[in-house]
Amino acid sequence: VTALPAAPVFLAPAEAAMLAAAIDQDSLIGRTLRTERATLDRFLAEPIVVPGSGPGGGVAHEQHKRNYQMLFAAGRFWQMTGEPRYAQRVRALLLGYAEIFEHLPYAQPFSPNPPGRLFHQILNEQMWLLFASAGYSSVRAWLPQAEREQIETHLFAPMVAMFAHTYSSHFDIIHNHGMWASSAVGIAGIATGRVDWLDLALYGQFGDGRRAGFLAQLALLFSPSGYYEEGPYYQRFAIQPMLLFAEALQRARPDLNIYEYHDHVVRRGFYAALHPALPDGALLPLNDALKRMNIDSLGYVLGASLMFRREAPDPRLLWLAQRNGQVWPDAAGLALSDALAAQGDTPPRYHFPSVELTSGTQGDRGAVGLLRADEAHGTQALASLDYGTHGLAEHAHFDGLTLSYFARGHEVLRDYGSVRWINIEPKQGGSYLPENLSFAKQTIAHNTVTIDGISQHSGDAERASGLHGSRVQFSADDGDRQMMTGEIRDFTPGVAMRRAVALVRHADFDHPLLIDVVRLQADAAHRYDLAYYYDGQIIRLLAPYTPADTLSPLGTAPGYRHLWRLGSGNAEDGHGLLSWLQDGGYHSLIFASDGPTELILTRIGANDPNFNLRAEPGLVLRRHSHDAVFATVLECHGVFDEATELSRNARGRIERVQILHTSATHTVLRLSGPSGAWLAGLAHTEAAEGAHHVATADIALSWQGAVVLLRDDRPSL
Amino acid sequence: VTALPAAPVFLAPAEAAMLAAAIDQDSLIGRTLRTERATLDRFLAEPIVVPGSGPGGGVAHEQHKRNYQMLFAAGRFWQMTGEPRYAQRVRALLLGYAEIFEHLPYAQPFSPNPPGRLFHQILNEQMWLLFASAGYSSVRAWLPQAEREQIETHLFAPMVAMFAHTYSSHFDIIHNHGMWASSAVGIAGIATGRVDWLDLALYGQFGDGRRAGFLAQLALLFSPSGYYEEGPYYQRFAIQPMLLFAEALQRARPDLNIYEYHDHVVRRGFYAALHPALPDGALLPLNDALKRMNIDSLGYVLGASLMFRREAPDPRLLWLAQRNGQVWPDAAGLALSDALAAQGDTPPRYHFPSVELTSGTQGDRGAVGLLRADEAHGTQALASLDYGTHGLAEHAHFDGLTLSYFARGHEVLRDYGSVRWINIEPKQGGSYLPENLSFAKQTIAHNTVTIDGISQHSGDAERASGLHGSRVQFSADDGDRQMMTGEIRDFTPGVAMRRAVALVRHADFDHPLLIDVVRLQADAAHRYDLAYYYDGQIIRLLAPYTPADTLSPLGTAPGYRHLWRLGSGNAEDGHGLLSWLQDGGYHSLIFASDGPTELILTRIGANDPNFNLRAEPGLVLRRHSHDAVFATVLECHGVFDEATELSRNARGRIERVQILHTSATHTVLRLSGPSGAWLAGLAHTEAAEGAHHVATADIALSWQGAVVLLRDDRPSL
Repeated sequence: VTALPAAPVFLAPAEAAMLAAAIDQDSLIGRTLRTERATLDRFLAEPIVVPGSGPGGGVAHEQHKRNYQMLFAAGRFWQMTGEPRYAQRVRALLLGYAEIFEHLPYAQPFSPNPPGRLFHQILNEQMWLLFASAGYSSVRAWLPQAEREQIETHLFAPMVAMFAHTYSSHFDIIHNHGMWASSAVGIAGIATGRVDWLDLALYGQFGDGRRAGFLAQLALLFSPSGYYEEGPYYQRFAIQPMLLFAEALQRARPDLNIYEYHDHVVRRGFYAALHPALPDGALLPLNDALKRMNIDSLGYVLGASLMFRREAPDPRLLWLAQRNGQVWPDAAGLALSDALAAQGDTPPRYHFPSVELTSGTQGDRGAVGLLRADEAHGTQALASLDYGTHGLAEHAHFDGLTLSYFARGHEVLRDYGSVRWINIEPKQGGSYLPENLSFAKQTIAHNTVTIDGISQHSGDAERASGLHGSRVQFSADDGDRQMMTGEIRDFTPGVAMRRAVALVRHADFDHPLLIDVVRLQADAAHRYDLAYYYDGQIIRLLAPYTPADTLSPLGTAPGYRHLWRLGSGNAEDGHGLLSWLQDGGYHSLIFASDGPTELILTRIGANDPNFNLRAEPGLVLRRHSHDAVFATVLECHGVFDEATELSRNARGRIERVQILHTSATHTVLRLSGPSGAWLAGLAHTEAAEGAHHVATADIALSWQGAVVLLRDDRPSL
Repeated sequence: VTALPAAPVFLAPAEAAMLAAAIDQDSLIGRTLRTERATLDRFLAEPIVVPGSGPGGGVAHEQHKRNYQMLFAAGRFWQMTGEPRYAQRVRALLLGYAEIFEHLPYAQPFSPNPPGRLFHQILNEQMWLLFASAGYSSVRAWLPQAEREQIETHLFAPMVAMFAHTYSSHFDIIHNHGMWASSAVGIAGIATGRVDWLDLALYGQFGDGRRAGFLAQLALLFSPSGYYEEGPYYQRFAIQPMLLFAEALQRARPDLNIYEYHDHVVRRGFYAALHPALPDGALLPLNDALKRMNIDSLGYVLGASLMFRREAPDPRLLWLAQRNGQVWPDAAGLALSDALAAQGDTPPRYHFPSVELTSGTQGDRGAVGLLRADEAHGTQALASLDYGTHGLAEHAHFDGLTLSYFARGHEVLRDYGSVRWINIEPKQGGSYLPENLSFAKQTIAHNTVTIDGISQHSGDAERASGLHGSRVQFSADDGDRQMMTGEIRDFTPGVAMRRAVALVRHADFDHPLLIDVVRLQADAAHRYDLAYYYDGQIIRLLAPYTPADTLSPLGTAPGYRHLWRLGSGNAEDGHGLLSWLQDGGYHSLIFASDGPTELILTRIGANDPNFNLRAEPGLVLRRHSHDAVFATVLECHGVFDEATELSRNARGRIERVQILHTSATHTVLRLSGPSGAWLAGLAHTEAAEGAHHVATADIALSWQGAVVLLRDDRPSL
């Protein structure tokens, strides 16, 4: 197109009238609008403050952030209510910014992201432009021409120039930052009627729509599964500008059919951001991640409303909107709210499925596997195994084949997440801290195997980007017998590691059992450290163990130097049990290995002079061997309630795991305890779905499918 | 009396009929009865199991406990419904027990409490008799005479004999165990019509009602304030048999007027058990205590109903009952439920007052002071200071003048409680663990001063029992300016310690400020270790500090050997600040001392081979001096929410405390930070309520009352 009439970006006049009528409704859209209005009215009661720049979490930072949120809201409330005070506040704020913006010095940078004039990183400045220009679009028609020019020429234009020219290399990266940059410039273009800005946003600075720009972002950022390989925490962030700009385009440029673009990539990206939700709604903290970020954040509120209107009225979105407690305050949110009310506001819970989130633009670079099994009392267990790519360099962890487990309402096998205290100004302005590199990214910080004390790829991100894991099998059709197997090769040169993770339900157990078989094959002898991080109070330890009299770091290598070695012992037979109490439930980790195994208990926090790390416990199973196998079972059992002094089943049913057979393709385990024994057969092979038969000196086991668990009623071995 | 007709202990026929009519009501009593019936019906669907003895938390222990609870419930439901299955289950169980009881060997003891035949301690056996005999009383009239004799002769009689004769010394102690023993025997007496048992219960084995028995317990166990000096956790336990037996007596022996006995001591004991509730309902964990025990436990459910009916329809009890979610299932509970329904089930919150819980039978042996101040958002801050007695020997801690602080919904300055994993069978059957003595009882485990590394009274309980703290002043009339001061003398020979704790609200601060002034006066030089235990992630430390490269225990002395020394530094000027993030809020502890002070950071967990201790952080302020003063301010500030990436006011307003003046009676502090300064005047003297004037070289301050906080607008000092 060659002309673009400046217009309100998100709210047509007819829609504004419909929303105005909904403000006093007893409905989700009504509550959403009243909450927003109350916040906005409190803001309007305060003086107008346009500060300079400041660090993350500081007063200036928070004020700029609040200003852009309120600019956006005030614009919409002006459209809905016609009350001049809303338009006046937008005008006053934008003129205030326009007056000083070009004269502000660049801010003090805190991160690899370059600084803006308002914020310590341009990322935040782009968010500012996106929301502030959308707010401007609502009042533009009301403003005198001279003030429009003042704002567009001395505020928006230099911002666009800063993003697209001063920082042109950042503008064009295929990355969530690039998504924000192009969406901000595009929305500013629609708000002001600048075709050149919109084209820049859509097609990038080279104008081809393939190497850069929003369309290229959409085509390149997501795998066929919709997964964005920087990880769920950043995918949550990437879908915000994706959805905002897509919706703005659907209104300003319906000819683009943006929601259908690239096989409905917007929809795919949104749903793939929802899949890694833990059963409590927090996001699986793969790579750099805040652990409590959840599916109530902005992208999900946006997505529930927009997908419901623009794609299909998926009933699962009703559940999400009710959980969010709000909808997106536009015509889509109104439609979603009406649909929810028609259901009596009691949508059935979204039953998240087991799913594989493939990586790579073609979906051929491994995946993150997610197995889910229903527990009693309406909760769900979730095991995740990462056999995909390294992730985008800046926020990736050296954590190939890491395992996480969430059950009974909490993280049982924990991923540390990132070392960052977001927006806490005394913690370096809330930016990533040195321990993020020296601990959180390192392999030993994860529930996987560190070889010879050295992180995967020796911590070399470039090497890591050239390799990826692969799927061996993923079987989730039978909810009682699910299993996934991934493999990584040469993440440490000459070593192949295959990990099979089964999630099995059996009538003898109150909760699903997690079975974890790790196989290492190498061309030389190595030291293998299999780490598990947990949380809670140790109840039983059945393994040789000597507590340390004084605590020293576990080593001097990256990662290791941050772990206190609490004590250790040598299990000559490779067997042991560690059980702990976490919140109101017991957990037993029963392990076996095919040779002498050292058990080391650890606590995070050594060499942490600025108290940046959380002091969480973990364990390391250490083998010195050429090849090695670790077979671990995690059993959740019993209950404890201190207030009622109730404890039941503090001992689980399984006290011992024996490896009866193991090969590259099959493993048979015997699980036993005082009340019985069970056999587990695992086919960790590409041909897992078929029939399997394993015969050893004292057992012959046949089964169909990837995994089987059955009672072993033979006399004890 | 010489004759006592055997009768249902708790439910007259007319009451049973009234309750039966309430079962299907949509009311608290209806819900209570339906929940109880559902539990009972599940129990009736199971086979009858009468096991031998077993450890705490083990299968046998839990079965015996469940059996007595269900015997009690089944008896009442038989009275209410007339359904024979309830009576039949009571009959079958009691005959089962009667058949084996005399032949069972004594159980394996786990604690100083001697073993019974069913349980590892007779305390539990007494609880069994109380509830089982009450259940029996409901069905006795329905049983053939021969079966009555079987049960009374071969089960109840040998139990009574075991309590009163085999363990006669335990039967007569003035203690919560003695309360259970006499109440159990008394209720068995009422159930069976045995006057001799009832008299034994009331008047003790000497028959005088002064040295032993229930009446002596009531007269001797509680101070005039109603406080039971074993501490809130055990008072919670003591009020259960007190209330049960009192109610049984009111029905069987109305001539005793038991509720009026000893100036309504039952009422006083109940309300004093309610006062130490933390704002979340958990009980202040003084002495040996489980930290999550709360006011929803049995004694409070009982007390709300019985006090409402027998004493006065106190509206605060409506709030308690609604919080409990249940009432006591008798006529009293019915009355309380009806009163609650009449209020539309929305009782106003019980506003706990600031209060002093005096110790000693005459109330002249010090007290536990509790100051409460309302916070924003409906929460309450609570500071407690223990200047009372040592407590009853077995469960007492050497913690004179210990301070606890609860604010913003969590414990900020924490008391460890006891080292015990109640009913967790692998943890020594849930009994007290060795670390309870070696850590939790020791002075260094508490928020108070340890002198020369030696616990108060050198850990000698007998010496401790001979001394007690004293109240200097307690001022709570002005909710904005509350203060309490306690003193201990010779807890360490030759040393007097006075501690003033103020809870102050001021418009400049979002939350109440806690001000803590500790003064030590001695006849020789000493090492003073003032400890504070907190929870959370350190955000800022403004004081010299060097982290330790390897961690060693803080010392070899009791208590010290369980603390890891994380690092330390010498503040030559005695000043410093430590701030941390706990849950969603920031906390800053700003300290000053009158001389060089070493700051040591610690973590609990050294020398803990069986993982019995929780790994919680703390700090120690160490002074070497003759006399010494520590002045500390605790400021709560700001908010943090990771899910919304929000952080505000991560720095508090106060960064420095200066001691401008201090004497035995008055202290003036200057609190200052980047945004201003304040003066605090404290009159920690018996004459605190009057007028005060302090003049120093550069300040003259006059005020009325114990404490004042005002802005200091002078140019900075």
